[in-house]
Amino acid sequence: MKVAVIGAGNGGISMAAHMALKGNEVSIYSKFNNEMKEIIDKGGIYLKNGCVEGFAKMKLASTEISKVIKDAELIMVVAPAFAHKDIANEIAPHLEDSQIVILNPGRTGGALQFRKIVKEKNKNLESIVIGEAQTLIYASRKVGPAEATIFGIKEKVSFAVLPSSAIDVAKEKIQKIFPQFTPLENILETSLLNIGAIFHPAPCIFNAARIESTKGNFEYYHEGITPTLGKILEKIDEERMNVAKGLGVKNKSTIEWLKDAYGVEGNSIYECIQKNKSYSGIKAPSNINTRYISEDVPMSLVPIAEFGQLVDVETPTIDMIINLANIIHDKDYRENGRKLEDMGILKEEFINDEAAASKFVF
Amino acid sequence: MKVAVIGAGNGGISMAAHMALKGNEVSIYSKFNNEMKEIIDKGGIYLKNGCVEGFAKMKLASTEISKVIKDAELIMVVAPAFAHKDIANEIAPHLEDSQIVILNPGRTGGALQFRKIVKEKNKNLESIVIGEAQTLIYASRKVGPAEATIFGIKEKVSFAVLPSSAIDVAKEKIQKIFPQFTPLENILETSLLNIGAIFHPAPCIFNAARIESTKGNFEYYHEGITPTLGKILEKIDEERMNVAKGLGVKNKSTIEWLKDAYGVEGNSIYECIQKNKSYSGIKAPSNINTRYISEDVPMSLVPIAEFGQLVDVETPTIDMIINLANIIHDKDYRENGRKLEDMGILKEEFINDEAAASKFVF
Repeated sequence: MKVAVIGAGNGGISMAAHMALKGNEVSIYSKFNNEMKEIIDKGGIYLKNGCVEGFAKMKLASTEISKVIKDAELIMVVAPAFAHKDIANEIAPHLEDSQIVILNPGRTGGALQFRKIVKEKNKNLESIVIGEAQTLIYASRKVGPAEATIFGIKEKVSFAVLPSSAIDVAKEKIQKIFPQFTPLENILETSLLNIGAIFHPAPCIFNAARIESTKGNFEYYHEGITPTLGKILEKIDEERMNVAKGLGVKNKSTIEWLKDAYGVEGNSIYECIQKNKSYSGIKAPSNINTRYISEDVPMSLVPIAEFGQLVDVETPTIDMIINLANIIHDKDYRENGRKLEDMGILKEEFINDEAAASKFVF
Repeated sequence: MKVAVIGAGNGGISMAAHMALKGNEVSIYSKFNNEMKEIIDKGGIYLKNGCVEGFAKMKLASTEISKVIKDAELIMVVAPAFAHKDIANEIAPHLEDSQIVILNPGRTGGALQFRKIVKEKNKNLESIVIGEAQTLIYASRKVGPAEATIFGIKEKVSFAVLPSSAIDVAKEKIQKIFPQFTPLENILETSLLNIGAIFHPAPCIFNAARIESTKGNFEYYHEGITPTLGKILEKIDEERMNVAKGLGVKNKSTIEWLKDAYGVEGNSIYECIQKNKSYSGIKAPSNINTRYISEDVPMSLVPIAEFGQLVDVETPTIDMIINLANIIHDKDYRENGRKLEDMGILKEEFINDEAAASKFVF
């Protein structure tokens, strides 16, 4: 299959190489010359020391997005969520009907925002499909400009698309490459089952001094998430669940998710995390200017709080985390985050009834 | 002079013993039998290994407050601020006119709250004086049931009284024992120059995980207050200053206070703290159930925020710290803290004009 990858960071080059080694014709794009140079020079990407290895030849590596996506049946966007807006603006004029774009992952409201921009920028499109994965399929790291190591590949990755009616077409195509991709009906399910929103900003904020004074040299999960932190995370999780309930979409608590993803069971988030050996050895970010805040606050917590406003569900703890992130980073993440209007939702148009969620099944 | 000390913790037994060694007739009270037993048995308190040493005979040590305060010209309350309410209720029926009660320290609004309770409970009193010190004069520790070590005695302790017209009488008496006590005109000055409100709750909250996972084994000031923490503390300090300004009372920023108290200078709280060698070796509390939160949130941050409401000054960061403390301790510190009504202040009666602060000069 002809596929395109947008983004050449840890995830992007891993996915591009992996798909090529699976026999697909892969093109890769990044707007950054320094990210693309070596891939262009070598003509491909090396996967080393991981669960997939080999030299993966690229059909094309380029900083020109129009060339990279031309004729691609599937376009995988593998970039920080705060880049989705720019990528949508850049890609919109060049998209063709029946192409499928998947954000890996979308965080919260990624596909909604991406679709809104694409529709506004390219009014000729009639049957474009925009989707989002709930998480990135890989645990991987870029180890050189054209080299990556894939440590692990998830067994299951939920995804959903807009319009929801296109899910079968999308599923068929994606599963040819990634049988792990499991379709969900409603884009709000992938958007609200956002566990990064729980595990990323608050533990960084409540370990801010330790991150700064030790340069992140402590166990992020096992030392950074103590009983008190667990309590705070449970408040955030409860608010996320309330928002999902208010929207009428299926969801899972973080405790349920930890059980499904890692098989650990316990009565509290703290207990489950302590039992999860997969989290051993994961160190904290080395400084407080981390994507755990700069990505997950505006692209996860802000849209969750915004969905809360839509259905009149209060999110005081989430609001507090957003405010603290603003102080710490000197930003206005609420204003610059994914707001309802960015996701193409007008509260006035939204009627809060039992079929509320169906409003998002475009 | 006949003096009474209410409280037999670190500060209480140190002050009782020190005053006795200075030649005063000192009685000491605690409602806790276990705190009083050994002092009663020994007839006094030992000061050891510190800057004052010796056996200090008590005139009386008792769990009966009426006996302890009888005929005392000066009554020093040396107890956590969250105990002030109970002590006021207990002591009120036994107080006599012309006695002087000083809270060491009052935190924010201590004297106001104490006076309100005393006045309500004992309507016969006409000339009672209730005051508060801005800080405890000692750095000291209880090292046995009837033993303490005084590490240091502050060179200057600000205090103020209600009614403010009694300041000269109060000053004369107190300075006979403690020449360090320096009178301020307005009780709001002692109440709002509350640096514990800055240095206690927020650093604990933003080091919560580290306190729990290391049992407080890190430098509270030098490792626990990093540039990011400093930023948060500056926000809180700014709000405290704005409240003082709104009330029309003199105040100092934490940076100015650090200069006055320790001679350190810098452009940020972080910088000043790093330069302050007196903070070296001070470890964090060993667990998150610390008075740095349970005392300083309800008795410092809450009344500061309440004063803010009185003069329409917003305190969003302080409010956030209160909310976080509520989550961490499963409490409602706002509801159970010192509110305007607890301090005997009715917003309806309070006119926000240039002479606003004079309202508190009873």
